[in-house]
Amino acid sequence: MFKRILTLAAVCILVAGTFLAVNTESSQAGNGNGNGNGKGNFNAPNNGKVKNVIVLIGDGMGPSFTTAYRYMNDDPSTAKMERTVFDNHFVGNAVTNPEDSEENVTDSAAAATSMSAGVKTYNGAIAVDNDRENVKTVLEAAKEKGMATGLVATSQINHATPAAFGTHDPSRHNYNEIADDFYDDMISGKHKVDVMLGGGTDYFKREDRNLVKEFKNDGYNYVTSTEEMQANDSEQLLGLFAPVGLPKAIDREENIPSLDDMTKEALEQLDKEKDGFFLMVEGSQIDWAAHANDAVSAMSEMEDLAKAFETVIEFAKQDKHTQVVLTADHSTGGFSIGRDGDYNFYPEAIEATERTPEFMAQEIVDGATVEGVLNEYVEFTFTEKELDAIKKAAASDDFDTVYSAISDVFNKRAGAGFTTSGHTGVDVPVYAYGPKSEVFSGLIDNTDIANEVFNFLK
Amino acid sequence: MFKRILTLAAVCILVAGTFLAVNTESSQAGNGNGNGNGKGNFNAPNNGKVKNVIVLIGDGMGPSFTTAYRYMNDDPSTAKMERTVFDNHFVGNAVTNPEDSEENVTDSAAAATSMSAGVKTYNGAIAVDNDRENVKTVLEAAKEKGMATGLVATSQINHATPAAFGTHDPSRHNYNEIADDFYDDMISGKHKVDVMLGGGTDYFKREDRNLVKEFKNDGYNYVTSTEEMQANDSEQLLGLFAPVGLPKAIDREENIPSLDDMTKEALEQLDKEKDGFFLMVEGSQIDWAAHANDAVSAMSEMEDLAKAFETVIEFAKQDKHTQVVLTADHSTGGFSIGRDGDYNFYPEAIEATERTPEFMAQEIVDGATVEGVLNEYVEFTFTEKELDAIKKAAASDDFDTVYSAISDVFNKRAGAGFTTSGHTGVDVPVYAYGPKSEVFSGLIDNTDIANEVFNFLK
Repeated sequence: MFKRILTLAAVCILVAGTFLAVNTESSQAGNGNGNGNGKGNFNAPNNGKVKNVIVLIGDGMGPSFTTAYRYMNDDPSTAKMERTVFDNHFVGNAVTNPEDSEENVTDSAAAATSMSAGVKTYNGAIAVDNDRENVKTVLEAAKEKGMATGLVATSQINHATPAAFGTHDPSRHNYNEIADDFYDDMISGKHKVDVMLGGGTDYFKREDRNLVKEFKNDGYNYVTSTEEMQANDSEQLLGLFAPVGLPKAIDREENIPSLDDMTKEALEQLDKEKDGFFLMVEGSQIDWAAHANDAVSAMSEMEDLAKAFETVIEFAKQDKHTQVVLTADHSTGGFSIGRDGDYNFYPEAIEATERTPEFMAQEIVDGATVEGVLNEYVEFTFTEKELDAIKKAAASDDFDTVYSAISDVFNKRAGAGFTTSGHTGVDVPVYAYGPKSEVFSGLIDNTDIANEVFNFLK
Repeated sequence: MFKRILTLAAVCILVAGTFLAVNTESSQAGNGNGNGNGKGNFNAPNNGKVKNVIVLIGDGMGPSFTTAYRYMNDDPSTAKMERTVFDNHFVGNAVTNPEDSEENVTDSAAAATSMSAGVKTYNGAIAVDNDRENVKTVLEAAKEKGMATGLVATSQINHATPAAFGTHDPSRHNYNEIADDFYDDMISGKHKVDVMLGGGTDYFKREDRNLVKEFKNDGYNYVTSTEEMQANDSEQLLGLFAPVGLPKAIDREENIPSLDDMTKEALEQLDKEKDGFFLMVEGSQIDWAAHANDAVSAMSEMEDLAKAFETVIEFAKQDKHTQVVLTADHSTGGFSIGRDGDYNFYPEAIEATERTPEFMAQEIVDGATVEGVLNEYVEFTFTEKELDAIKKAAASDDFDTVYSAISDVFNKRAGAGFTTSGHTGVDVPVYAYGPKSEVFSGLIDNTDIANEVFNFLK
């Protein structure tokens, strides 16, 4: 019965000629909204040509993450919940499903390929289609046009998302081959990516091959600390700040750059190119935090992305010919704002620590005492029950067990729920700023990101 | 450290003069999108005056529900995931937080008051503000203008959402007082609501008062079945089809109308008023299903709402002066598309039953055998482990325990995760159709729904 109803409904769906056109020429007044009460819009200061394109991706950043970030930034002394930098540029949602014979919830590789190349593909695909054929990416199209190109991530730079913009591989797991591809696969005799900033020395400096040396031989400056990066003056830049992924934002020492630091450096170098640039910036570890069901780290990484987004918006405002679009590849963890019947989310529980549960778990597994670590970094006093659970986990000497036990305390105190260690299929929010923001508004498909960027590059 | 970063960020958030204006005069061509690949837009066939306003509310319908409904309607034989009636009219998201001293995740009453009266208030408030003062609702403003008014719900008609449009009370739990208010609180000597269709005989026909009789004495036609309702010709209509809430859509017999049936009848009567009408239609039990962590019922109620929405869109297309807006008051249950590490959602598990777990649990508690009930209504064969869990629950003779055990099987098979028996704070999607759809686009606050409708009624 139910099945029949649904099938009928699918047939009955209204096929309506639809139309949305957004007037982007004005900039301040008369938006027809009337009440001015926090409605988030997008700015569109210039209806002219797009010279530069910046795509930002919050890996795993489903709608609960961007809403939770608003809760995190709320000033409880005011009646209104303050809007975030994301809110100010919200334009719509994106559909993320892959085209995979086994799975209908996407992974980061398939989604990144959709956003880099405009095709649906299978989970694990790095800029290849379902026939495992290479598909041209927007970064490659930009390089073919003589534009400068950059990739910035807090994961290793050969991880799924940046990889799907700058390389091709049938499997995201071929990390070495993907790293090699960054060097070997050229366009008109030039390396595809001018600025690469992220983690990944484990893959770029290997026993069998030293890609760092090869890039340096070809004129790239190679940097490994914030200071070195900020002193850089080369338009060809490889910066690797960790063996694999960078530490989480709140765990980073000064010698490891924030996503914002890397984004600023990339913008400085890329903007030297008179023919414009393409830059992809990924807040990679919102996803990793959510895979681990760790709300503290997820919000740490949201903050890292938000600051980079603010920098990008400020750049685009000054430049007036830069199109910015920010979205997520999927949501992760089934993260919910509220859990276990309580109608509350408590940001103060998340704000009460100077380090992530991951960082603290590592110190404990490395030999520090549970109380010593928690007292050093966490503002609130753990209950005996909470302490006992963490101590019990610590007795296992297993990092994941300790990590999970500490996260669990913060999640329960914060009211952060999780349903999975994997991804979920919910539509993700889309944010845009620039002369062509209207093309990303409403409900789009993740392939529309690439298809519209290709249009800009024509 | 983290706290400091966040505080700084809150201060640093870009305060940008923003502007969004949507050109709604054209209707088919030149949307600047270029690729036509499933981008959902809103239709805006007429830039003229709004005569009629229809607000639809999917109670509890957060973004995972509307996305899951797309998965439910997907034709797996095609590469693309087919868009739904919701998708075709998506315009943005809404922020839902209440202004409550104890809770920062909204309930249905506070959210309904925001959408009916344009104010933030405390959880439990029925069209009263934080000082417990009555606040004028859009339905009342419409009635003051001489427009016809209607409320349609699958809950009792004096439940939080419809109540907050047509009555005032400091507490949603004062069901009898709220029912009385529908009769007693008049505007210019007339009852406020011309058409009321839903459940609620327990509250309208009581030992201490018979509101049905009173409404009939005042000229209302009273109906209690689909047939009676469809034979109705009176513009003043009270239809109560259940003691409290209606059965879930897939559990309804023919004598109980669908949300779509009720909506059609309301439209037929309200449209007789030359001065226009205001109608609120609620898919009330998406929320109830999600409170019970029952994905089967949630999708049953999504389907019920989708069909009513299709009818409303068709009406508005013909009428050309009707503004439609559909949104949710909040999300419920922490529902996720995918769970336990699996990158899949399996609609076929949900489609495999003719009745809800709730219905089947009731039959079991009423004395039917577990196997008998499951075999009668469910297409798939239960595993021994699944059967044992349900039998164990059945031995308790406790309805909730049996209901939960049956739901659990469907949820696990479907890949539907839940984190709470309560609500969650995630932003909710907004859909619109009509001459003024642009005012609902982008990121809005739930109070904007009422404030914009008030503007239409000026």
